[in-house]
Amino acid sequence: MLRRDLLGGVATILPGAALAQATAPAAADGIVEKRVFEMASYATRGGATIPNLRVGYQTMGTLNPAGTNAVLVCHFFSGDSHAFGRYEAGGPAGYWDAIIGAGKAIDTNRYFVVSADCLVNVNVPNARTVTTGPATLNPATGKPWGMDFPVIAMRDFIEVQKALLDSLGVKKLHMVTGPSNGALQTVEWAAAYPNFIERCMPVIGGAEFDAWMIGWLNIWEAPIKLDPNWRNGDYYGAGREAPLRGLAEAWKIVTLHAMDRAALTAQGRKVVEGQNPARNINDQYAIEKWLDERGMARARTSDANSFIYMVRANQLFLNEYASYEAALARAPHRWLVIPSPNDHVFLPDAMREMVETLRRGGKAVQQAEVRGPLGHLNGVVGMAPLTEQIRAFINN
Amino acid sequence: MLRRDLLGGVATILPGAALAQATAPAAADGIVEKRVFEMASYATRGGATIPNLRVGYQTMGTLNPAGTNAVLVCHFFSGDSHAFGRYEAGGPAGYWDAIIGAGKAIDTNRYFVVSADCLVNVNVPNARTVTTGPATLNPATGKPWGMDFPVIAMRDFIEVQKALLDSLGVKKLHMVTGPSNGALQTVEWAAAYPNFIERCMPVIGGAEFDAWMIGWLNIWEAPIKLDPNWRNGDYYGAGREAPLRGLAEAWKIVTLHAMDRAALTAQGRKVVEGQNPARNINDQYAIEKWLDERGMARARTSDANSFIYMVRANQLFLNEYASYEAALARAPHRWLVIPSPNDHVFLPDAMREMVETLRRGGKAVQQAEVRGPLGHLNGVVGMAPLTEQIRAFINN
Repeated sequence: MLRRDLLGGVATILPGAALAQATAPAAADGIVEKRVFEMASYATRGGATIPNLRVGYQTMGTLNPAGTNAVLVCHFFSGDSHAFGRYEAGGPAGYWDAIIGAGKAIDTNRYFVVSADCLVNVNVPNARTVTTGPATLNPATGKPWGMDFPVIAMRDFIEVQKALLDSLGVKKLHMVTGPSNGALQTVEWAAAYPNFIERCMPVIGGAEFDAWMIGWLNIWEAPIKLDPNWRNGDYYGAGREAPLRGLAEAWKIVTLHAMDRAALTAQGRKVVEGQNPARNINDQYAIEKWLDERGMARARTSDANSFIYMVRANQLFLNEYASYEAALARAPHRWLVIPSPNDHVFLPDAMREMVETLRRGGKAVQQAEVRGPLGHLNGVVGMAPLTEQIRAFINN
Repeated sequence: MLRRDLLGGVATILPGAALAQATAPAAADGIVEKRVFEMASYATRGGATIPNLRVGYQTMGTLNPAGTNAVLVCHFFSGDSHAFGRYEAGGPAGYWDAIIGAGKAIDTNRYFVVSADCLVNVNVPNARTVTTGPATLNPATGKPWGMDFPVIAMRDFIEVQKALLDSLGVKKLHMVTGPSNGALQTVEWAAAYPNFIERCMPVIGGAEFDAWMIGWLNIWEAPIKLDPNWRNGDYYGAGREAPLRGLAEAWKIVTLHAMDRAALTAQGRKVVEGQNPARNINDQYAIEKWLDERGMARARTSDANSFIYMVRANQLFLNEYASYEAALARAPHRWLVIPSPNDHVFLPDAMREMVETLRRGGKAVQQAEVRGPLGHLNGVVGMAPLTEQIRAFINN
């Protein structure tokens, strides 16, 4: 959580698996169970083979006999399956708990909601996140894969989720949705399996991953590779230290990039208590110390190599299609696109182009905006006001 | 220069001392001479003393007998005094040569134009840049200052320029102007010496340096400190290597941050020739290789500690005033504020707030926009279309 004293009363957050608890409305009673989906072998889109693939997932609601009332929720870059519900009474709620649950916008009395941990999920140290990635033991060597893990594309996320949904008896997705990286998965799903999907609701993302986006994600990951403890990804095991400083810097960039200046206005130009940046070059402003601390806290709960693989999966968004336009032309008909007007990751003009591209392809596209001081993150923690628009889209 | 093959015909650039030559209109004939201004001792605003201060400067035009026709041009973060003219026939032109020179918007037939290298200028390896900063020899030790160099505030830039202008016989500035960091200096000048200034023209900057801005500049500098060669700034001298990898990453962030996706659209999703990012985790997209190469090229022509000191000088913008509003209330009356509408460093809404703050303070504020695909950098390389608006402001 972002300290309230820092942000002057703006209740806000760091991207993270359990970030919404402070801002979620009155808790749902829904307790969810984390389960594990396994595949003995998975062939990646890049032509490699991963034995013993495991990813975590959770569901809420009941699948109808026809298997047609499922809603798939895909998580953001730093998240996991915990989009809704609580793992125990009084525990933290999922990041979209405000809009998923009994009687909520995505009503679990009507829909069977599924969310899974992605491959190469960053939250390796979190015991509840189940993923397969560079930190996983390679059965062929008995050691963690490290940077020998196969490249994972966004499309691989979809293929594993498709196998999971098949195993659950889902015949059709009533809707696929998710924020940020989850919106990219929504679009990747739409291009890959248009006949399997009725509705798409990408939130704060889904626009073309062009050179600007590819470059920014390179910048996100770059500090990891500067950390001498990274050792080309070979930092697992006794006597070695993880590249926490580099990973912390990476999370600092993500943290600020995913916010907006409006969230920090109250913080202004405060300095760290007892320090004087005007006299001592190593003294800091409060925002610097806050970024350092939050970055390091997030580094301790994530894995550096997995961060690098997640970056690549994002860069490979729609990599199998001739163009963004060609990919979207394949997609299902019905869309609700939800940008954040002060988003500095997926820029408003890129989101407008996405809507125009969908419309040129003949799709029926509704739009809504998620607003608030948090920029990109509005789409993770500020969704409650969109309840009626989402309800109307999903129920009609 | 950004390679034209990469950007698909968008003639564009990296922030740098001599970046405008490819895009500047027909060259001025004006040859300028780089000179050196020296102070035996300078007392910083933070209370330290710097002996043997030296900064470079250049002028064009003739000061009138009253000393009232001077225009001061302050440079951007990575720039130096080379705003106009050429040091030799056929050499590169200054970054604002399109609007400064005989018959141009800032007409050197009428005005005496001055530009100086700032303290802690990053372009230490450039023989034409003359600065005093962490790479300078400390006379007390005979070694470079390193991180023992006193903190320099934006206000110190102004004090040294004021001493220079006094030495040249300037009695009043007809106008003070500059892009980005130069715009911050313009506003700092306005608050410090309102009666010395007739007109202020901040370009792509000058908005409040709030937590968002302080945080971003922390992120710019952070990779330097991750590089093991940085050694807390003690990397000068035989047998030591400069932290080029960290500095290159810092410049990569600045480079992308100072552009807009519109500049990179043509580059799209090209991969490095012969590489396959979908199969090999270390293979790259073309934009990544380009950022790496440009970052490293810029690192080789700059100094890492000076980058850190420049960051702090920016963070200390208007640090002596109770508030941004209080500082601007002191300023002279006449303003022409020129934001870039696709600027990702000084955001359009922050620039709007700046104009509103000036107007609340009773100032006469004109506005113009500098447009183009380059985002923030439009204000460095795209100023020619504003010639008539600038001319009208400066001549009336």
